[in-house]
Amino acid sequence: MRKNAALLGATGAMGQRFVKMLEKHPFFDLRLLIASEQRKGKKYGKEVRWLLGSDVPEYVKDMEIHDFKLTNFEREGIDIVFSALPADIAREYEGKLREHGYTVFSNSSAYRMERDVPILIPEINAEHIELVKLQKERYGGYIVTNSNCSTSGLALALAPLRNYGIERVFVTTYQAVSGAGYPGVASLDICGNIVPYIKREEEKMRRETRKILGKLEKDEVKDYPVDIIASCARVPVRDGHLEAVVLKFRKDVEVEEIKRKMESMKGLEGLPTAPAKPVIVRDEEDRPQPILDAYAGEGRARGMSVVTGRFAKFGEYIRFYLIVHNTIRGGAGASILNAEYALSNGYL
Amino acid sequence: MRKNAALLGATGAMGQRFVKMLEKHPFFDLRLLIASEQRKGKKYGKEVRWLLGSDVPEYVKDMEIHDFKLTNFEREGIDIVFSALPADIAREYEGKLREHGYTVFSNSSAYRMERDVPILIPEINAEHIELVKLQKERYGGYIVTNSNCSTSGLALALAPLRNYGIERVFVTTYQAVSGAGYPGVASLDICGNIVPYIKREEEKMRRETRKILGKLEKDEVKDYPVDIIASCARVPVRDGHLEAVVLKFRKDVEVEEIKRKMESMKGLEGLPTAPAKPVIVRDEEDRPQPILDAYAGEGRARGMSVVTGRFAKFGEYIRFYLIVHNTIRGGAGASILNAEYALSNGYL
Amino acid sequence: MRKNAALLGATGAMGQRFVKMLEKHPFFDLRLLIASEQRKGKKYGKEVRWLLGSDVPEYVKDMEIHDFKLTNFEREGIDIVFSALPADIAREYEGKLREHGYTVFSNSSAYRMERDVPILIPEINAEHIELVKLQKERYGGYIVTNSNCSTSGLALALAPLRNYGIERVFVTTYQAVSGAGYPGVASLDICGNIVPYIKREEEKMRRETRKILGKLEKDEVKDYPVDIIASCARVPVRDGHLEAVVLKFRKDVEVEEIKRKMESMKGLEGLPTAPAKPVIVRDEEDRPQPILDAYAGEGRARGMSVVTGRFAKFGEYIRFYLIVHNTIRGGAGASILNAEYALSNGYL
Amino acid sequence: MRKNAALLGATGAMGQRFVKMLEKHPFFDLRLLIASEQRKGKKYGKEVRWLLGSDVPEYVKDMEIHDFKLTNFEREGIDIVFSALPADIAREYEGKLREHGYTVFSNSSAYRMERDVPILIPEINAEHIELVKLQKERYGGYIVTNSNCSTSGLALALAPLRNYGIERVFVTTYQAVSGAGYPGVASLDICGNIVPYIKREEEKMRRETRKILGKLEKDEVKDYPVDIIASCARVPVRDGHLEAVVLKFRKDVEVEEIKRKMESMKGLEGLPTAPAKPVIVRDEEDRPQPILDAYAGEGRARGMSVVTGRFAKFGEYIRFYLIVHNTIRGGAGASILNAEYALSNGYL
Repeated sequence: MRKNAALLGATGAMGQRFVKMLEKHPFFDLRLLIASEQRKGKKYGKEVRWLLGSDVPEYVKDMEIHDFKLTNFEREGIDIVFSALPADIAREYEGKLREHGYTVFSNSSAYRMERDVPILIPEINAEHIELVKLQKERYGGYIVTNSNCSTSGLALALAPLRNYGIERVFVTTYQAVSGAGYPGVASLDICGNIVPYIKREEEKMRRETRKILGKLEKDEVKDYPVDIIASCARVPVRDGHLEAVVLKFRKDVEVEEIKRKMESMKGLEGLPTAPAKPVIVRDEEDRPQPILDAYAGEGRARGMSVVTGRFAKFGEYIRFYLIVHNTIRGGAGASILNAEYALSNGYL
Repeated sequence: MRKNAALLGATGAMGQRFVKMLEKHPFFDLRLLIASEQRKGKKYGKEVRWLLGSDVPEYVKDMEIHDFKLTNFEREGIDIVFSALPADIAREYEGKLREHGYTVFSNSSAYRMERDVPILIPEINAEHIELVKLQKERYGGYIVTNSNCSTSGLALALAPLRNYGIERVFVTTYQAVSGAGYPGVASLDICGNIVPYIKREEEKMRRETRKILGKLEKDEVKDYPVDIIASCARVPVRDGHLEAVVLKFRKDVEVEEIKRKMESMKGLEGLPTAPAKPVIVRDEEDRPQPILDAYAGEGRARGMSVVTGRFAKFGEYIRFYLIVHNTIRGGAGASILNAEYALSNGYL
Repeated sequence: MRKNAALLGATGAMGQRFVKMLEKHPFFDLRLLIASEQRKGKKYGKEVRWLLGSDVPEYVKDMEIHDFKLTNFEREGIDIVFSALPADIAREYEGKLREHGYTVFSNSSAYRMERDVPILIPEINAEHIELVKLQKERYGGYIVTNSNCSTSGLALALAPLRNYGIERVFVTTYQAVSGAGYPGVASLDICGNIVPYIKREEEKMRRETRKILGKLEKDEVKDYPVDIIASCARVPVRDGHLEAVVLKFRKDVEVEEIKRKMESMKGLEGLPTAPAKPVIVRDEEDRPQPILDAYAGEGRARGMSVVTGRFAKFGEYIRFYLIVHNTIRGGAGASILNAEYALSNGYL
Repeated sequence: MRKNAALLGATGAMGQRFVKMLEKHPFFDLRLLIASEQRKGKKYGKEVRWLLGSDVPEYVKDMEIHDFKLTNFEREGIDIVFSALPADIAREYEGKLREHGYTVFSNSSAYRMERDVPILIPEINAEHIELVKLQKERYGGYIVTNSNCSTSGLALALAPLRNYGIERVFVTTYQAVSGAGYPGVASLDICGNIVPYIKREEEKMRRETRKILGKLEKDEVKDYPVDIIASCARVPVRDGHLEAVVLKFRKDVEVEEIKRKMESMKGLEGLPTAPAKPVIVRDEEDRPQPILDAYAGEGRARGMSVVTGRFAKFGEYIRFYLIVHNTIRGGAGASILNAEYALSNGYL
């Protein structure tokens, strides 16, 4: 049942997170590392500027980097492709792979808003994966995306509350620098500073959240009808996006009920990267915090739990803060969990 | 017309800001430095752990620190008292001074919400100063407060919009560490981290903003009827509070009109610490930022202008970001401007 | 063979590191948590401000905090005491425990320079443990100390070079804020800043290194004859002390030989907290770095390896940089390794 | 006597510092802004990503950016050229300007080590400017360089001690991110981290210091005979390089004498950018610090004083720390001061 995996964008910051999370993975063997042409033929361990602790994992150190050629995928007998590409390149490469029958689990935004492409978070919208059948008919292969990093945390926290009728969301973010990749944000811009602007982020949070929380109806996801006003800023934090969320519900709800709903979400069983608790509620007066809470979750699912706290009710509004690890639950981990889900449920 | 001034809490972080802003002040001579008893008798220049650049200003270096005794105020012929005290001590000392006929301009929260005490921002609620007449009758002296640091920026940005009927404010803050005084926030808590909690701050923003924007009617300020939901966090920035603001108006307003209203606010003439433009609107896609914008304003009024930007309209909501220098416009500068206003308008 | 352990200073930053490293320890059961009197009777999990990731370890959450009373040690059948106390209190409490026959493994500086107390780093001066026999005769119990945090890294890197005759050491440090405990360094002092001063640190590096590298001769450690000039500064880094080291040898040595000597140091077998390689040499042009290298080492010994790099020869001088994790190899981990060594070699 | 000035590399981080320091300069009118070709024709105020506070200075806002063409220099009647170019481009452009008779004051390293080019610090080696006569004969124009940023601080602190016979210097740096330009250092590399490597910096400190401190003898600078071992690291600080310095003298010197020598250095009179005291000695136990001391100096000379402190004697060695503002005294300010000196002494 093990599958051969390829990774697009293997040397970037997000690619490195994939490499780390795929080490000794029970389902997938990473056999093909794709990067830009000028890195072709080099050893991964020599070529990458490794950002995740002291050493490049042993298993990839001596793997050769390849450029994007379909023959590479054939030669290695690739069953599944993970993509850590920037959106513009992703559009071309992921599309080409799909047309040649490949299955792509992509962290890129390129295809997220396509009608027949799911933005999958299996704990909350597993049925959206059905969309891949449409893609298979049309192209041969298919693409499953995970959401934008900030969106993933928001969607997981909101999902258990859908039935209360969320009318409006005001979300303000404090986003870590690792979200911008490498070299990404210049130190002169962010050391001791805040930059209240992240390109296209606010729009992504609005559109993607509505789709993720939506219902699959007749081959199409019908958006969850919520208005979202997002204000996004970059902060001098390494990992972990913090978000302040204010919700307006269509009916009156109490804080304790909301916390209970979040806490009672069940993790998916049998998937190595699925945390036991997708959302953890904390009661301390000053949590969640990036340094303390970004890596919530256990074992392979470390960094896959969203942590919420600081709940308060103001009239018809409920306020809370959440933390999501932007390159794990909001990136590589999300793609890998999606692939695990697809494999375990017969879509691979 | 020059007045003799005393400063309470002279060695703390906010006290230092007062000392710096009162250097060569055209109206006030700082003649009495009050600090806690164990510092009594020491030279200010030796005793203070100076945080504002290389050197303690010459004019205070050799001044002796005194403890709080009324005889000290009499001996120096003090006309006016600035207070940088923490709230609990302020309650006692400021009250005592008022009862002995002194005029206190206080940055402390102790008396802000008292009915006969104004939270003065002379550009936007100058008439509130009339309340001091009530105090004079009752106590002999009077207290004028300035608002909490985050509130000052919010109130200045909202004031020119009052006539549009602001129904609701959602404000989320990114607050600098200097706001917590010295030693204040531990580096282990904040370096590379965010702490989404500042004691009593959210409540202060709600209550004080309503009062500041209110109207003086028959010896009392009637709150401006707006609901405010504040979410406050500490960030690893030295100076300058950034705030994300979403407004809901009672009638439809366009972004351009709002920007025009903010820009057209006039500065107060003849007051040394009053900026020419109380609110500066910026059009860049990524401003305001603490490092670039916290010190907006010119000459003595450096740090006294609030800077706004990133305006957007989402249906019936308007969103923008603002920066306020928390220890200048949100602290010492606010107190000094209030004193300048009082003096220039015959209240001293 | 399992031993019952107590921990002094359990709620502080270093105490927390002990708690974390003692979780599921194969040799020691932590059964008694001692903190200051005002915390007495409270649950550890409620009382501690936990700084090391999301949650207090389960095994101590419900343990009650006790104050320092000998009856507590007796009741719990304590065999061994770990101390994370500040020096002044340590002097009293550790002394008292020793007089009552207890064995203390202390991170405190209080007893380090006593003639009959070893500063033990078992990979490099294991024979110094013999000193405890003198203590046992004199007091009944004994104290084993580990070195100051910066010193531990320096001593480990120098030890394999002792035979070349190190004549002089110039060491300049970049020390992390966790080294100052909690609350420790104020954020206003260190965010975006460097403080070139750490109380008594330079003297500790000089004296302790000479003793650690010395030889045990007739019941006394004879200092290794090296002159050390240390210049110590605090930097805005969370964990991991970086040190720039320049050595002058009594005879000519080549860089490659030095690297080989460091690399060939053997780890101690059979001790859970001993790293396979006490010193790791890196060849990249820009390593070691705190974020990438402070946690070098595997499993329980994570953070126990010192990492060196940037070797260069300038005439008769050799220069390199090193990183040591200040609260692991330079703190709790060092104490625990010492206790493991003592137990495995019959000193307990 | 006013001169028309051009600026090469006007939009970069160092170029911006030149622009700021040349505002309302009593001697120079900045009339020509040169940047890379793709910026040609654009307004400076629109094109630059301004890093030095809220706004681009008014006087350059509407100036057009030009590319490097000699006709531009002729048209504007340029008398003097400032260069903030990277070394590789500087080599070509500065050389070409010199051949066409222009006078260039350059912050670039391209020509620093040429025999007929001075690395001028007028307070300490003013006579080196005589070298420009050689250049004039050979090329028509001439180039005057200032030193590398870290070197400038070191050289200023050492110069008054030359007569004691400095035999050896061990210098270890803590260098600010602004030294690497913009975008420069990636935030993922430096936030909460230290990078102990700056390309070619250690070699520059060695070579340039020897030349700067040298004597002009028969048309050539004879190096000051000192061995320098430099260890350079980047730290998460915005502005201001801190350096730990250990000196070995050829004869015995006391700390107090050294401090007196440094303090007694005279500033140059009549030059707007020359500080009254080139070196300021501080006696506090924890100074100098970047945030507090980088901007030492007054008026136009703000950031032009080097600050030293933490003096100690260890046998035959003297240790101290120094701070130099890397883009002012170590960059734009140094070039401008050199130009002021040249003009005032008849070399222009």
